[in-house]
Amino acid sequence: MSNGEFALIERHFRRPASAGQEPVPLGIGDDCALLLVRPGMQLAVSSDMLVEGRHFFAGTDPARLGHKALAVNLSDLAAMGARPLAFTLALALPELDDAWLAGFSGGLHALAREHGCPLVGGDTTRGPLNICITVFGEVAAGQALRRDAARPGDDIWLSGRTGEARLALEFLLGRPWAQPVAGPHLSLLQQRLEAPQPRLALGQALAGIAHAAIDLSDGLVGDLGHILDRSGCGARLHADQLPVAPALAMLPAEQRWSCLLAGGDDYELVITAAPDRREQVMQAAAQSGTAVTRIGEITATRALVILDGQGRPLPGRYGGYDHFR
Amino acid sequence: MSNGEFALIERHFRRPASAGQEPVPLGIGDDCALLLVRPGMQLAVSSDMLVEGRHFFAGTDPARLGHKALAVNLSDLAAMGARPLAFTLALALPELDDAWLAGFSGGLHALAREHGCPLVGGDTTRGPLNICITVFGEVAAGQALRRDAARPGDDIWLSGRTGEARLALEFLLGRPWAQPVAGPHLSLLQQRLEAPQPRLALGQALAGIAHAAIDLSDGLVGDLGHILDRSGCGARLHADQLPVAPALAMLPAEQRWSCLLAGGDDYELVITAAPDRREQVMQAAAQSGTAVTRIGEITATRALVILDGQGRPLPGRYGGYDHFR
Repeated sequence: MSNGEFALIERHFRRPASAGQEPVPLGIGDDCALLLVRPGMQLAVSSDMLVEGRHFFAGTDPARLGHKALAVNLSDLAAMGARPLAFTLALALPELDDAWLAGFSGGLHALAREHGCPLVGGDTTRGPLNICITVFGEVAAGQALRRDAARPGDDIWLSGRTGEARLALEFLLGRPWAQPVAGPHLSLLQQRLEAPQPRLALGQALAGIAHAAIDLSDGLVGDLGHILDRSGCGARLHADQLPVAPALAMLPAEQRWSCLLAGGDDYELVITAAPDRREQVMQAAAQSGTAVTRIGEITATRALVILDGQGRPLPGRYGGYDHFR
Repeated sequence: MSNGEFALIERHFRRPASAGQEPVPLGIGDDCALLLVRPGMQLAVSSDMLVEGRHFFAGTDPARLGHKALAVNLSDLAAMGARPLAFTLALALPELDDAWLAGFSGGLHALAREHGCPLVGGDTTRGPLNICITVFGEVAAGQALRRDAARPGDDIWLSGRTGEARLALEFLLGRPWAQPVAGPHLSLLQQRLEAPQPRLALGQALAGIAHAAIDLSDGLVGDLGHILDRSGCGARLHADQLPVAPALAMLPAEQRWSCLLAGGDDYELVITAAPDRREQVMQAAAQSGTAVTRIGEITATRALVILDGQGRPLPGRYGGYDHFR
């Protein structure tokens, strides 16, 4: 790292609490950071890369961008039932903009503080704006919520509700159908898109109780599909049981289903758990202050069937968002 | 992650050995990978981001690029004395190019296999070419080679030799002075630039023996300066004791000193150790098959003095490479 990079990192990214304390014996400023993982715990790691123009609009509020860059990584920890320990940040910037950096690091550190997850190292360089965060958490051995652990007969649960981030996106992209509906709710919708809340407390409360989990980045149907693929199962989704946000209730049916089922950027959890765990799932929801809704069942047949309120298959196809589409 | 991304990762990046074995109970394909860190060991983590046009030329051989992207991260583990466990890869690509991906993943996996360091997860997206690797290693608690651990009186050691990568770079940039000298040695010089060998065996052999270490990414003087800053010390460097590669011996003095002292991209280690450890340092060098040279001493005065063969301060100033310069 160069002197200029060092000064930059010192000014905006280093925080007094980021080193010398357990579980971080050594933080920013060396070749590596050092972390402690307690005996009996496994380390959970995840990396996400956010690219301007693909994952966020040029000109996005830097504080929200800092929040979101960490939030999408923390959401991966939540989906494993892991507790955050620390994260690294690699950042390519087209220029050194002090105000932008102040906003970005402010949003980043606010969420990091909230979840006790300090920045412990990384890299800074010049280049097209690119944010790569790697997050570290711990989970008791054998208790992680894995995508391959769903079993036929499991309930399927959804935290929070889906579709609002997508409606915000469609509004910002100028879609005519989104304008009258999203306009009155824009502030909330945009917050859902730009400042998602990772469901860490819920995930940790369900470790060892639920079977499988995934966080929703690409859309409910596509991401549930990853659980089904890896678990060798199918599912029945009851579309009419999905919670519907006020703004989405006003949409024409086609767009409403699309947002709910294939919206993307939700950062809610989909969880599968045995039916005899319903009380414990509800307790975990209460304890973590997170709404949960039972929305379907895992089946032995390798197909995903989406039913309407009359038990008929929903028309149309819903897939995840493909970054290379 | 989307279906397209999944197919891409399956095809080029997943390897059978990357999951289900200690220390990787869960590899690619879930929200997080899971790693085991043995009791008494600390986890060492480092992230580096490589940007096209800044860290490598457009059109660089993809296999060498895959090698280098991992090598520069493994070099950070080497500088801590840590043993590699695993790494994650986040990759932004302007397009899906099968041949490029085959070359890149081939170079990446070859080095990963060599050091028993499997790919366990990451992210793939479309965007300006950007490679972000985070590497995980383990080192016994209290034995890491830290930048803040140099002490006055320590010997300063250098692994291998510096400057060849910089000479290759200057040749490729078309500098007239570099052409006649670098031309006959180009194949070797370019290998030093594009396929550096991380000094992992040496670093691990010195953990618990040496005091401080750093890996040379920005240049000998600049990177040694980071040790001095963090240790609150100074140093005397004996420039005439630096090993000089055959190609560099032919350079005019100014360019030769510049390559040797401020070249960058060397990925050699600078190590400080007490003088009564000289035999052990030599043994570690022999055991790891890595040449080492004693090039100076740590001093109590907070200044870096570079002396020529007659003990006079070398003229000129040598600084590290600043990515924002």
